[in-house]
Amino acid sequence: MTPKYEEATERLYHVEHLREFAARVFSSCGIEDEDARRAADVLATADLWGIDSHGTARLLAYYEMFERGLINPRPRINYIRELPGTASLDGDNGLGLVVGCKANEIAMEKAERVGSAWVTVCNSNHFGIAGYYALRALERDLICCVMTNTPPLVSPLWGAERMLGTNPLAIAFPGAEEPPIVIDMATSAVSYGIVENALRQERTLPDGVMINREGYVSTQPTDFGEGGALLPLGGTRESGGHKGYCLASMIDLLCGVFSGANWGPFIPPFPHHLKRPERSVGKGLGHVFSAFRIDGFIEPAELKSRVDEWRRTFRATKPAPGTSGPLVPGDPERASEARRSVEGVRLMPAVVAELREVSRRSRVPFD
Amino acid sequence: MTPKYEEATERLYHVEHLREFAARVFSSCGIEDEDARRAADVLATADLWGIDSHGTARLLAYYEMFERGLINPRPRINYIRELPGTASLDGDNGLGLVVGCKANEIAMEKAERVGSAWVTVCNSNHFGIAGYYALRALERDLICCVMTNTPPLVSPLWGAERMLGTNPLAIAFPGAEEPPIVIDMATSAVSYGIVENALRQERTLPDGVMINREGYVSTQPTDFGEGGALLPLGGTRESGGHKGYCLASMIDLLCGVFSGANWGPFIPPFPHHLKRPERSVGKGLGHVFSAFRIDGFIEPAELKSRVDEWRRTFRATKPAPGTSGPLVPGDPERASEARRSVEGVRLMPAVVAELREVSRRSRVPFD
Repeated sequence: MTPKYEEATERLYHVEHLREFAARVFSSCGIEDEDARRAADVLATADLWGIDSHGTARLLAYYEMFERGLINPRPRINYIRELPGTASLDGDNGLGLVVGCKANEIAMEKAERVGSAWVTVCNSNHFGIAGYYALRALERDLICCVMTNTPPLVSPLWGAERMLGTNPLAIAFPGAEEPPIVIDMATSAVSYGIVENALRQERTLPDGVMINREGYVSTQPTDFGEGGALLPLGGTRESGGHKGYCLASMIDLLCGVFSGANWGPFIPPFPHHLKRPERSVGKGLGHVFSAFRIDGFIEPAELKSRVDEWRRTFRATKPAPGTSGPLVPGDPERASEARRSVEGVRLMPAVVAELREVSRRSRVPFD
Repeated sequence: MTPKYEEATERLYHVEHLREFAARVFSSCGIEDEDARRAADVLATADLWGIDSHGTARLLAYYEMFERGLINPRPRINYIRELPGTASLDGDNGLGLVVGCKANEIAMEKAERVGSAWVTVCNSNHFGIAGYYALRALERDLICCVMTNTPPLVSPLWGAERMLGTNPLAIAFPGAEEPPIVIDMATSAVSYGIVENALRQERTLPDGVMINREGYVSTQPTDFGEGGALLPLGGTRESGGHKGYCLASMIDLLCGVFSGANWGPFIPPFPHHLKRPERSVGKGLGHVFSAFRIDGFIEPAELKSRVDEWRRTFRATKPAPGTSGPLVPGDPERASEARRSVEGVRLMPAVVAELREVSRRSRVPFD
């Protein structure tokens, strides 16, 4: 059904077109309009930032989960436990993009009241780019550290099978005259998107980012599909792979074990047609939002000018040979946003075909 | 003054002997007895865990800072700002080991009252192993995520100079029948201790963990002393060095920029005789303690049995060839503790000589 990459050329779409389409598709699945718009905004933001693997390209995968009744379009977020500065939430098997926005809102409201909050969510699904939620906090002079566990693609150091997700972490810091610093990173050495690209371009991978099914380090991207696994950030033991494994474990323990969600190898797959784990140890997958008020620590204006000074100092670092010096976290995404806001978002032919398929099934016009 | 390594043999000391000696030395510096005992306990724990670079081996460095009046032996921790779930503290230039314990206590008390807390501290100094503070939280059915910024040894990705500390992060999770999971990791590819060991043993370093003064990746440990820098976790761009740079930045922004402490290249050195930064952008260095109540999310007994199941599942991962399978974070330190509690702590001749020097100057008997 999906045409091969060779069958068509890439196409450019204005991001508003993609955002509007995704919102109408989500509405057609039964999601309330405001939630549908927010969910679409998460995807459109990923498209703008150049994180194509988390943007509109995922719409068919989400849509098919609704078609099969695997996601609840009208979740009622349930408080399992609550204290002034904590909440343990059940996402009622809602779309991760919706549950994520609601849980982030709860964390931010709690932080506004008592200064800080830790909020966990179980019974959720893939929530898109973690950085989206972290950026929302800045609009309210808050900071929010956001984490999620994800289906297993990564081996623990010294393991030979997929046990952990790429478990990302995001946090953002506001600037005054300068743009915000936005950190949004997976805790694996590389993302699955890098493996996909290497496959498509018939290139090898860098050393120390992947193992084959026997557990030997491999640079052949085809080994991944045959039972290989990504390595945690740091790669092998000598270069710090135990640290990436620690980070991914921390996020899995917080988002899965604490929240009441599934964890590690038991996290259900996304998209839905991939192999399901042999058993369940909780509900769906989980997220964590840890928020605090900037003015609990420092006057927000002062913080912002200190963040600006940090940025300028780091931008002025003596450059390594052949580079223009260090970037500041979030700069590549912002550059992409500036470009794609004007030029549009370039979608691969396979993605265009998928969106047309979504359009056909949902009866929401695409193009 | 310090003898060369060749001049003597290593010696074994019972950890109680080291803990008692360090406590009496700190008391002799004017620190209150209870604080002195706690500070000594942080060092002794590092010795037990096998983190020799953060144990009693540092005592002379701390002692000399007191001798020169660079540390305040009787700090009064000052609240710069406070909300129910936050505190911004000034450590009054106290010993980091003392300030760290007090700030951790404040974070834990706040979390007990409202469920969660974020606490920053400026005007502090080197606080030893971050994992010590994280473990304390488990005694009260709390979780505490602990971070600190440290003097610059690490280059941002694409930089060619030292701009960031090895900025560690620690967190611990309690088990029921199994021991706790303890994560305590630097965010650089390797620690400075690895460079020191390579120098001592005349070995090269693994590829992608260090650059020379020009910014080229180097495997020669001697390049570090000549103006080189460690690389962030992940090493080069291809293997994820931008992610380690993001992590170290996050910790520097939270612990330094937010707290009112120095940050990045402006953090004062430890030991004191190293080159001081050209200017100051805050007070001392900074830590962050983010604590929450386990029962804000889940019954502690249930959490502990879920953590046990996580541990057993990960221990049962199919092993990579030539290994006995993945370890669980904290296992190497616990194995060291079990061994060294019985056999004693082996100190290098240079360290023994330094402790004897501390003994001579402080008039606290050593051996």
